[in-house]
Amino acid sequence: MSLIELIDATKAVIAEDASKAQALFQVANELIGTAKVEVRVGSGHRFTVDEPESLGGGNAAANPVEYALAALGSCQAITYRYWATQLGIRIDKLTVEVDGDLDVRGFFGVDDGVRPGFGAVRVRVRLSGPETAARYGELAHAVDAHCPVLDVFQNPVPVQLELVTTT
Amino acid sequence: MSLIELIDATKAVIAEDASKAQALFQVANELIGTAKVEVRVGSGHRFTVDEPESLGGGNAAANPVEYALAALGSCQAITYRYWATQLGIRIDKLTVEVDGDLDVRGFFGVDDGVRPGFGAVRVRVRLSGPETAARYGELAHAVDAHCPVLDVFQNPVPVQLELVTTT
Repeated sequence: MSLIELIDATKAVIAEDASKAQALFQVANELIGTAKVEVRVGSGHRFTVDEPESLGGGNAAANPVEYALAALGSCQAITYRYWATQLGIRIDKLTVEVDGDLDVRGFFGVDDGVRPGFGAVRVRVRLSGPETAARYGELAHAVDAHCPVLDVFQNPVPVQLELVTTT
Repeated sequence: MSLIELIDATKAVIAEDASKAQALFQVANELIGTAKVEVRVGSGHRFTVDEPESLGGGNAAANPVEYALAALGSCQAITYRYWATQLGIRIDKLTVEVDGDLDVRGFFGVDDGVRPGFGAVRVRVRLSGPETAARYGELAHAVDAHCPVLDVFQNPVPVQLELVTTT
């Protein structure tokens, strides 16, 4: 099945029955070193998170805020693919660079007026292909309105936090 | 240098000179398949992002929203480590489970009243160690006030988006 056939079939199913659009994503993160974390994804994938040595980690892998930026950049890239396909717009090459500014005084509690997360994020999409700039602008508008991780960055997500302790 | 020595030294430096607290994190994401993305992190690490076959990908790796949940869960785990160390609270074992509900009608544009990102996220921290529940509650309070990726989920981040096209 081509991507456009899969998109059209999926849209038909979820437009008919909204219960079929409800997806649950799950991850489990275990702290296995000073700052090293093993991640098991519900879908079966595994990967590691760590901090650089300058922050007391072993530098075995990217750190959580780098994974957050990669989640945003890769989500933009994939949303470009799906929406270009839906809109009949051709893309030959696509890269997404993401920069994030973070003031670590927030994390360390040195100044509680400083937020612990990113103060600013910049996304630069580099796209080549045969369409007009206006047509790619139309695509960017559709992507930014429908990109799941961009929504997570730009808008508050309700997060329920629970602590279970055992001795 | 022990972790508490590193934390104390870092706090002394950034309390003295705020310019030393300004960190820049960077990632580059290249679309190399239907939904497959290769990520290069500024720190040198590399990893892959993909979608499952049901969504038209090759299932080579976790997808962007799973990486976003792992960024949150691993950030919680590491922030527990650093703040437990700062507060002198012992942790023997820590796992963080994160679940996210996502209605894919938003992503596919079937209903623009549905947000594309997570409608709800649940974080369950499982912690064992010798301290009282009250002491671990104090730790959780400090962690949730200083966890960078929790801040990204709970509060709007200013994101500047730029599209550069070439033919």
